Amino acid sequence: MIEDLILSNPNKIVFLILDGLGDIPNPDHGFMTPLEAARKPNIDLLAADRGVLGRIIPVDIGITPGSGPGHLSLFGYDPLKVEIGRGILEVLGLNMELEENDLAARGNFCTMKDEIVTDRRAGRIATEETVRLCRRIREALPEIDGVRIIIEPGKSHRFAILFRGDGLNDDLEDADPHKDHRPYVYVRPKTDGAARTAGLLNNFIKKVAALLKDEPVANGILLRGFSRKPDIQSFPAKYKLDALAITTYPMYRGIAKVLGMKAGSEPKSYQEMVAIMKEQWNNYQFFFLHVKETDVAGEDGNFEEKVKAIENVDKIIPDLVAANPDVLVVTGDHSTPCPLKGHSWHPVPLLLVTGTGERDSLTFHEKNCVRGSIGTIYSRELMTLALAHALKLDKYGA
Amino acid sequence: MIEDLILSNPNKIVFLILDGLGDIPNPDHGFMTPLEAARKPNIDLLAADRGVLGRIIPVDIGITPGSGPGHLSLFGYDPLKVEIGRGILEVLGLNMELEENDLAARGNFCTMKDEIVTDRRAGRIATEETVRLCRRIREALPEIDGVRIIIEPGKSHRFAILFRGDGLNDDLEDADPHKDHRPYVYVRPKTDGAARTAGLLNNFIKKVAALLKDEPVANGILLRGFSRKPDIQSFPAKYKLDALAITTYPMYRGIAKVLGMKAGSEPKSYQEMVAIMKEQWNNYQFFFLHVKETDVAGEDGNFEEKVKAIENVDKIIPDLVAANPDVLVVTGDHSTPCPLKGHSWHPVPLLLVTGTGERDSLTFHEKNCVRGSIGTIYSRELMTLALAHALKLDKYGA
Repeated sequence: MIEDLILSNPNKIVFLILDGLGDIPNPDHGFMTPLEAARKPNIDLLAADRGVLGRIIPVDIGITPGSGPGHLSLFGYDPLKVEIGRGILEVLGLNMELEENDLAARGNFCTMKDEIVTDRRAGRIATEETVRLCRRIREALPEIDGVRIIIEPGKSHRFAILFRGDGLNDDLEDADPHKDHRPYVYVRPKTDGAARTAGLLNNFIKKVAALLKDEPVANGILLRGFSRKPDIQSFPAKYKLDALAITTYPMYRGIAKVLGMKAGSEPKSYQEMVAIMKEQWNNYQFFFLHVKETDVAGEDGNFEEKVKAIENVDKIIPDLVAANPDVLVVTGDHSTPCPLKGHSWHPVPLLLVTGTGERDSLTFHEKNCVRGSIGTIYSRELMTLALAHALKLDKYGA
Repeated sequence: MIEDLILSNPNKIVFLILDGLGDIPNPDHGFMTPLEAARKPNIDLLAADRGVLGRIIPVDIGITPGSGPGHLSLFGYDPLKVEIGRGILEVLGLNMELEENDLAARGNFCTMKDEIVTDRRAGRIATEETVRLCRRIREALPEIDGVRIIIEPGKSHRFAILFRGDGLNDDLEDADPHKDHRPYVYVRPKTDGAARTAGLLNNFIKKVAALLKDEPVANGILLRGFSRKPDIQSFPAKYKLDALAITTYPMYRGIAKVLGMKAGSEPKSYQEMVAIMKEQWNNYQFFFLHVKETDVAGEDGNFEEKVKAIENVDKIIPDLVAANPDVLVVTGDHSTPCPLKGHSWHPVPLLLVTGTGERDSLTFHEKNCVRGSIGTIYSRELMTLALAHALKLDKYGA
């Protein structure tokens, strides 16, 4: 229905996504949340002056989302219907070219001893080591059973891999015991249709082990997140706009790319993030800016670090607002409360800055968001609201 | 499910619909909304004393509804599933009798010069002129190709028209260039099945042009909103009650009639609206009272006029409440915020006056409605809530 109402116009929407932003009252910090404790004069002035508040539920009440579903819903896709495999995300995040029938996986180098995985991360070897090992594999095993192999190193012991050939099936269990000191687990097909692919992959795994048997630490590989490109409508086509993602982490570049957004150059700071946005201001109508540090601090249970990340983001707000976006959304893909040291199901605080004079006259934090005029909605409904505020939606019916 | 629970009883429900009621904080008026600024002692006393508040979303989050979907959802129909054509609404609004297979359209008289539409509204000719022109057409063209033609003048340059015959298809594009100084656009069929009807209509359009060629201003017609009667369950049948609509504007009488409500005589004032309701009090269990002026003021961006309309409605409240309705609902079909000068997607403030002693102890405006105990619901859920408060719904399950 939305698709029929889209008006294409030059108005700009900026999504500033603070990963894992939402939190809960912290007993060690006067029952404040990091967003409440942070000194963020720019965000709060904007919120009080031109902002409406609310909360978003990424997947469903009580459901803790991964980063994939968290972001898909932010962009207006139903995360229960659309799934992007972890392998695909990793491959795209490493800027690898994906073709239509490719099978993708993420990999670890690991340490093996007599078919026992003694260290799933091979002592977290340096990235340069992984670069060297990937080169060895690339040279020795360019293809297997007529299927082309494309491997790229990631950070530390991680890599991403593509199998390019006809008829590959992704209905597969991970080749990973998921714990150290367990016997190696080979790829198992979940359905009969995937049996041939499983055989091919296990053949590859064994050839790699034979190749690396002389390596002192990284003498094996684990493969996870087997997946193929999902069949979804691209974000620019869905909303009739051009979209630019400005992110640092591979995962989020991957999500953006799979949705058909352009991925801008990787910013080295929040300041540079805004600079890239401004440089590209006239070429796009939608900007996705991603900040990872809030989530990292939440995962570490580090209240002070999360506060600091928010305060650092606050410093770029005047520069960002100077670009004069028609709609600025500040929110997260999910909550990562410090007391829980991980993703959670808690609704995510939402600030929508609008140009109509509408405002809730409230500063931005979880408790005020409960009282905001947007109410508590699903993340997948946010995009429609942003389009409405950017006057990009026609009236429904006469 | 609702249908199985309906209890038929004499309890009365009154829907007082202030068209386009919802608004947003207005920067030129101390960030108040018209509903907040209006002096409305009667409504506010009622709200504080016997009212529960909430907000209703007409179609969906971020979606701006037309009047049709806005009202359909108020009456408990899903506006995404039920659609009433604009032609049908116009015909019913002019009190024309609609038969099962009729094809309806709304029309304009226009000014043509050499197949160019120079003025789509024929200089907004006086209603008397339109009456005369419709009479000319009625006398000269009572039928075409065996299809009966029924034409009725509306206000100014507008008319409504029915084509009565077998096998007419409404899958048609408007005969309207939609802008002045464009070549005339004839009816085009959207599907093969509508080709015969399109030919018949274009034949009619040409015969009218030939008939009116001597007219100095209104020498052509535009036809829009081709539609047939929708196939929906009537409101009285759905809820097992008798319903009376007391409205002035054709559009809303049209919606009421298509839903099978009776349309009362047209009131000349809000006072008369209540008088008609009281006269008919014993004959109906549901009353739909429609006020248009709030929407008109919103469309004009006229804050003071919208305040005045609300204050004028407030004056009739004591008389209305004296009839002692079991449930009184005061709300709108959509928001028409003055700063936006048009319909919008914003949730609509809702006041439900009940006889149970329940109350939120809040006065009635947008900001309090965010805090109301009803919460934010969809308009299509309101009818069930009203039935419940009127004790017209049985328990579900044992």
